Amino acid sequence: MMPLIYSPHHTQHQPLVEQYHGRLLPYPETPRRIESLRQHLERADLVCVSEPTHPISHMDLVQTHDEGFLVWFQQFSSQIPRFSHAATPYYQLADTEDVYLYPAVFPSRLTMSRLRNTTMETSGYYAFDTAAPIGSGTWFAALHSATAAQTAADRLLDESASAAYALCRPPGHHAGRDFVGGYCYLNNAAVAATRLLRRGEVAVIDIDYHHGNGTQDIFWNNPLVFFGSIHADPAFEYPYYAGYVDEIGGEGALNTNLNLPLPSGTGGLRFLEALEVLLSAVLAFEPATLVVSVGFDTSSDDPTATFELRDEDYHRIGVALASVNRPTLFVQEGGYNASVNGVLAEQLLRGFLGV
Amino acid sequence: MMPLIYSPHHTQHQPLVEQYHGRLLPYPETPRRIESLRQHLERADLVCVSEPTHPISHMDLVQTHDEGFLVWFQQFSSQIPRFSHAATPYYQLADTEDVYLYPAVFPSRLTMSRLRNTTMETSGYYAFDTAAPIGSGTWFAALHSATAAQTAADRLLDESASAAYALCRPPGHHAGRDFVGGYCYLNNAAVAATRLLRRGEVAVIDIDYHHGNGTQDIFWNNPLVFFGSIHADPAFEYPYYAGYVDEIGGEGALNTNLNLPLPSGTGGLRFLEALEVLLSAVLAFEPATLVVSVGFDTSSDDPTATFELRDEDYHRIGVALASVNRPTLFVQEGGYNASVNGVLAEQLLRGFLGV
Repeated sequence: MMPLIYSPHHTQHQPLVEQYHGRLLPYPETPRRIESLRQHLERADLVCVSEPTHPISHMDLVQTHDEGFLVWFQQFSSQIPRFSHAATPYYQLADTEDVYLYPAVFPSRLTMSRLRNTTMETSGYYAFDTAAPIGSGTWFAALHSATAAQTAADRLLDESASAAYALCRPPGHHAGRDFVGGYCYLNNAAVAATRLLRRGEVAVIDIDYHHGNGTQDIFWNNPLVFFGSIHADPAFEYPYYAGYVDEIGGEGALNTNLNLPLPSGTGGLRFLEALEVLLSAVLAFEPATLVVSVGFDTSSDDPTATFELRDEDYHRIGVALASVNRPTLFVQEGGYNASVNGVLAEQLLRGFLGV
Repeated sequence: MMPLIYSPHHTQHQPLVEQYHGRLLPYPETPRRIESLRQHLERADLVCVSEPTHPISHMDLVQTHDEGFLVWFQQFSSQIPRFSHAATPYYQLADTEDVYLYPAVFPSRLTMSRLRNTTMETSGYYAFDTAAPIGSGTWFAALHSATAAQTAADRLLDESASAAYALCRPPGHHAGRDFVGGYCYLNNAAVAATRLLRRGEVAVIDIDYHHGNGTQDIFWNNPLVFFGSIHADPAFEYPYYAGYVDEIGGEGALNTNLNLPLPSGTGGLRFLEALEVLLSAVLAFEPATLVVSVGFDTSSDDPTATFELRDEDYHRIGVALASVNRPTLFVQEGGYNASVNGVLAEQLLRGFLGV
């Protein structure tokens, strides 16, 4: 059985809607996404679930994230209740119990722009997009999500397991060194990879439907971490501004970044071909450990995405990942059909474990 | 009678909603705002309305705005209809006739980020916030709004009038050299001021409720244009990241920028005191002409704002502006109570004209 690390505190974070071009859509990143997955894997006797007792320290987090960003995120989240009373009735938010502030004003284009802590509209200062609403429980949930990732990494470091599953929520791969975005706040995979650097070079591969722009951002200039991603082409899919093939790593880390964008409608065959390319690059990098950012939004059953992977494709992905033959950490990213996430995770782990 | 320049093409731009922290509010920047104002001033026999025949040229616009920004804005707006069909039903927009794309992904924090013209999500590339939705008619409306401002400026340049009113919609003062934001797309006041530089130094004063961050941005390093603004303190009010007292102008243009932020609940007395300070600075700058970005959202009747100006205060403001004794161009910015904008504009002009 594989250790699965999970924190029940993720339920402190439950935005209800996503703003989308003047509409409100149901927020797809729901608690049930991972609760159903956990229950399914437990019933299948594939994992042994445990909960971390202590949250990850600030000292550990600043290895991955900008300190100003961390201080802002914690303070901002804790101050949400008092920000819910706007100056005029026109903009009042206090008529519901759960207030989430959506990044709305993004000052980085402005000539004169500094972070001022007096206003609720700092929501956009450290944000990449509008899809990372922050409520009073968001910091706490994200902190424990990152904690799960680091705790799972420690299982590999102390050699109590050769593989582990960090069932993180909120997900992390769109969160960069100093920005939230795309339902992500702290980059769980990057936190785990940073921890695993104690063992030597780390390869992070991202097989979520969306490009892991946050992870790429964090390790862009780091030659000790290889980052490779298979994802929907950003020319038509989020995150739009990153994930292109010509992004190969920053100065001092050239060729440690590999993007394999795929077209709409990609099926299992094409996906597995790309995975083969990606894993060859991983083997050439000779990492000590492997982190897999895993999303199930590549499935044909996902309501938000365009890929056409079938259940059995996840079994094949698991087999391919096992062939890398490294201590391996799975970190949960996306997957928005709560009723299939468990089945797909089971397929993945059965393939990986050969059971 | 004062010439009032106006373009009926503003009705091509009519977003219906504003996204606000997970809610949808009615879009306050409506066509009726300026239609009611125009009709009221015509009935009061204070203005002579005319419409520009030819739109402002690209050559003129690039004096004020970044060329890449202009090209993007025109192309993006014209391509809206084909962007309305998203990859999955989950994100489809095509179920209504009028599609507006809201800035949503703001790449400036990302390590790797370039403008790619293949995706509808370039909506955030040249944007400061989410409150500048772009529809297929937005470029055309904004172009004609800027045209009205330049045409009105020309009335001062050819000395056919000593004062003119550019009844612009959409408004402009939150639009910077290379960004849209806050219901604004092209900076009409900046276009007019740039034109008026043919006569010598220009003073732009902004008496809208909100700080004119876009105008400040455009003239930040320009010693030939003085920019001064009276507005709600950005510590609690939009645009949050600019409008503070310590912003005094960029290198080579120090002390040509003056911000006078005021607290919530500011009434006429306090506002007029600030205006006196601002006009002293204008007189010390000795401009050849004066541009006034005028908003009526300082009124106690405005639904979106917190100031408490009364009708008669606008008369006093008009008297104070006349005392500067310079060729003067009024440029319409905000004011979100369509049923009082006309009365307040009448008060302003009666005070200014002494009639």
